[in-house]
Amino acid sequence: MAVSPPLPVDLSGIRLDPGKGLAGQLYQALRERILDGRLPAGVRLPASRDLATLLGVGRNTVVRAFDQLYAEGYVEGRVGAGTYVAAVTASAPVPATTPLDVPLTQPLQRLQAHHLPLPREGAPRAFRVGVPAFDLFPFETWARLSARFWRKPSPARLGYGDPAGDWQLRELIAAYLRNGRGLHCDPAQIIVTCGAQQAISLCAQLLVEVGDKVAVENPGYRAAGHAFAVAGAQLVGIAVDGQGLDTDELESADCRMAYVTPSHQYPTGVTLSLARRLALLDWAERREGWIIEDDYDGEYRYNGTPLAPLAALDRNGRVLYVGTFCKIAFPALRLGYLVLPKALAEAFSRRRALDTRHLEIGTQAVMASFIADGHFQRHIRRMRAAARSRRDALLANWPQDIRGCAPLPDVEAGLHLCVRVDSLTREAELIARAAQVGVELNGLSDYWLPGSPLADDQRAGLVLGFAAVPEARIVEATEALRAAWSD
Amino acid sequence: MAVSPPLPVDLSGIRLDPGKGLAGQLYQALRERILDGRLPAGVRLPASRDLATLLGVGRNTVVRAFDQLYAEGYVEGRVGAGTYVAAVTASAPVPATTPLDVPLTQPLQRLQAHHLPLPREGAPRAFRVGVPAFDLFPFETWARLSARFWRKPSPARLGYGDPAGDWQLRELIAAYLRNGRGLHCDPAQIIVTCGAQQAISLCAQLLVEVGDKVAVENPGYRAAGHAFAVAGAQLVGIAVDGQGLDTDELESADCRMAYVTPSHQYPTGVTLSLARRLALLDWAERREGWIIEDDYDGEYRYNGTPLAPLAALDRNGRVLYVGTFCKIAFPALRLGYLVLPKALAEAFSRRRALDTRHLEIGTQAVMASFIADGHFQRHIRRMRAAARSRRDALLANWPQDIRGCAPLPDVEAGLHLCVRVDSLTREAELIARAAQVGVELNGLSDYWLPGSPLADDQRAGLVLGFAAVPEARIVEATEALRAAWSD
Repeated sequence: MAVSPPLPVDLSGIRLDPGKGLAGQLYQALRERILDGRLPAGVRLPASRDLATLLGVGRNTVVRAFDQLYAEGYVEGRVGAGTYVAAVTASAPVPATTPLDVPLTQPLQRLQAHHLPLPREGAPRAFRVGVPAFDLFPFETWARLSARFWRKPSPARLGYGDPAGDWQLRELIAAYLRNGRGLHCDPAQIIVTCGAQQAISLCAQLLVEVGDKVAVENPGYRAAGHAFAVAGAQLVGIAVDGQGLDTDELESADCRMAYVTPSHQYPTGVTLSLARRLALLDWAERREGWIIEDDYDGEYRYNGTPLAPLAALDRNGRVLYVGTFCKIAFPALRLGYLVLPKALAEAFSRRRALDTRHLEIGTQAVMASFIADGHFQRHIRRMRAAARSRRDALLANWPQDIRGCAPLPDVEAGLHLCVRVDSLTREAELIARAAQVGVELNGLSDYWLPGSPLADDQRAGLVLGFAAVPEARIVEATEALRAAWSD
Repeated sequence: MAVSPPLPVDLSGIRLDPGKGLAGQLYQALRERILDGRLPAGVRLPASRDLATLLGVGRNTVVRAFDQLYAEGYVEGRVGAGTYVAAVTASAPVPATTPLDVPLTQPLQRLQAHHLPLPREGAPRAFRVGVPAFDLFPFETWARLSARFWRKPSPARLGYGDPAGDWQLRELIAAYLRNGRGLHCDPAQIIVTCGAQQAISLCAQLLVEVGDKVAVENPGYRAAGHAFAVAGAQLVGIAVDGQGLDTDELESADCRMAYVTPSHQYPTGVTLSLARRLALLDWAERREGWIIEDDYDGEYRYNGTPLAPLAALDRNGRVLYVGTFCKIAFPALRLGYLVLPKALAEAFSRRRALDTRHLEIGTQAVMASFIADGHFQRHIRRMRAAARSRRDALLANWPQDIRGCAPLPDVEAGLHLCVRVDSLTREAELIARAAQVGVELNGLSDYWLPGSPLADDQRAGLVLGFAAVPEARIVEATEALRAAWSD
């Protein structure tokens, strides 16, 4: 075979690895040379046959690489007269490694002041907050229901679905709320969400105007406060006393929206009294305002049945009720719901369609089976018993007479408790020493809004989740704390 | 047994159903009477023993009902002196049936002009748009992988996770983008999202300031346009010609953000030429702007390999790349991703934490196995072949010489095609007659922004998805159309 004529262009350095797709490699090599100017516009590429010979590959390989270059506009004019590098102006792409001086939009600016720390990593430890006894979740059952759904899903459920969520699940949630929480609603008022956080965030995105004042409990759930703040709200902290949110203070604040955790105030654990509930509803009616009721752990009540939620007392469609499956199942399930006043249901569903279309179908369908088959109610009872027993283990083994730390309070509800500490210094010290022996504690000081009127040391305390690990590990943790804290 | 003394209060009408929880029913009945004033504040309730006798229930039942009322603040002072109705002001709760005159916030107002119609219901039919050949999805494999994950999930993955998504899945996405799309990125730049829509919406929420002008293709993907609009953007429609988005027109528009579908323009099917790609990147660099590149069906290319995305040419960190698994798997999976310039990754992750915490773990973990075990790559090839074959069935069987309807174009990519029609009247007529024989067609006129400069009839056309149903059903549908459209 005759030696090819010298190539009109520099193709040196092209090395094709026979173990990988040859055409793709050749395409990449040529494209790189076109983009960085080594093959300038107008240059004629060698005939495919010549290039194939030169590189020791089949002609088809070269043709496929040329086709791809042609399809993307890097080369042109292949019919008859040969293949030319197209007139494109560019230099070599380099990875985007240089952080930009990004001009900050308002939403980006708000995030600088309002964001959460990254979640704690690893398996739950004592005394992680916000985590139920998910070591008891019937994963075998969940696996079986998942496999059952996925083996033969109805094609009608696999396309784009109702933005508000799977209808069957919404019916079951409505029935659960009716029977379990005394809350009567139509499934059409329910939107299935990616956990409570998405429910709260939707409320923030739709009902807050930039600059609006929104009342939040202080101390309170920072993830909710941040969600309102990034929607443009100005947060107004309202004090919490033994009856829950101080509604008198709320009256004097210039707000039309309030976010509350009536069943079990987060983080103090106080239950909002009936008088306050009625005052709050009355406030919302007079102001034509909204109450976001976050019933995040309403299933956990150890004396009597769970309290009836605010939404069950609402006569005027002023309460948006947030519920979650994450405190009964596990947080990474990211399944919750929002019960809306009827006047708001359509708008929320429309917004949800633009935000995410809807939630993934499998989780919704499997949860629907889990409820319909009776596993859910059984699991609630199991979880309530487990949380009570873990609470008891904590109360019975907590070290007595810790300097600067109040005795543990009674705990009649929820998955965590809150205990006051004398000073911020002592709070930090207790937490640091606990961390040294592998015990997680949260400081109450983290739950206050910045610039809270209370004296610094009055914001000190410890927040302990007692449900995350079994009794034996709670006992171990309390023993570790006793040693770590002995002065 | 002596007859009880007359009750001091009216408890007539309380009937307890022995088949259900008695204490709960009694609690409900008493609570209702307290709230509607039949049992006014200060009234002393009968002793629990007397009430039990009267109602023919155990005393414990009454005590539990009273406990619950006490816990909720409806009654007070039980020790010694008896049980009194507490001083609460309320009237009977009635269901919130009356739609409010809701005062409209700006976000609610924007939704009135910008929302999607509800998705089509039922199993896919010819020629539904946006739906891949999911009848070929290996559900048995997905079911097996789901069961495998759920049977023994690592506890570390069940709590609150990384807001950007499961790290393993992000690594696999990065590898897929590198090998399959020529896009090199660090998994830290990737955020796993609830489908492409959430990726687009996140961009809108974070990068748009109220009043900003955002360039969108016209005609274009309305769900994206609406997402920008509800974030406060003013949409600027940019014309699309045979090379894709008209970058000259973009230059003359006062925008700093553009949303584009370069691989296969939605809905016209045009591929953005290389020269335009480079012009677009240059525009973004000069304006310090952002390009949202939606590569929704980039895997489907029938000649040559898929085109390299814009993000792979970006030297300046100006492209936000949106990808989705929904066009390879099925829409209800709601799994997509966003590849961010490094400078934006942290802010987006922070916002995501406040919006939803993160995506449900199961879907992410199962997709990670699906990719790692090689099913994904195999399935892409299967889906590409199926879509090509369905395209061929449509092209071969489409009725010829339909009055007012152009011939079908060449289709080299994607899951749908677009064909021009002479007039809006004719478009409506063709769609209506198709619907009568059970065939779904979308009107091209639906994809334009309101107030587009083009003459009305130039906006007419049909958009047909060809991948949703098997070849035989495509042939049936074309035959039905031939009959329905014969004049």
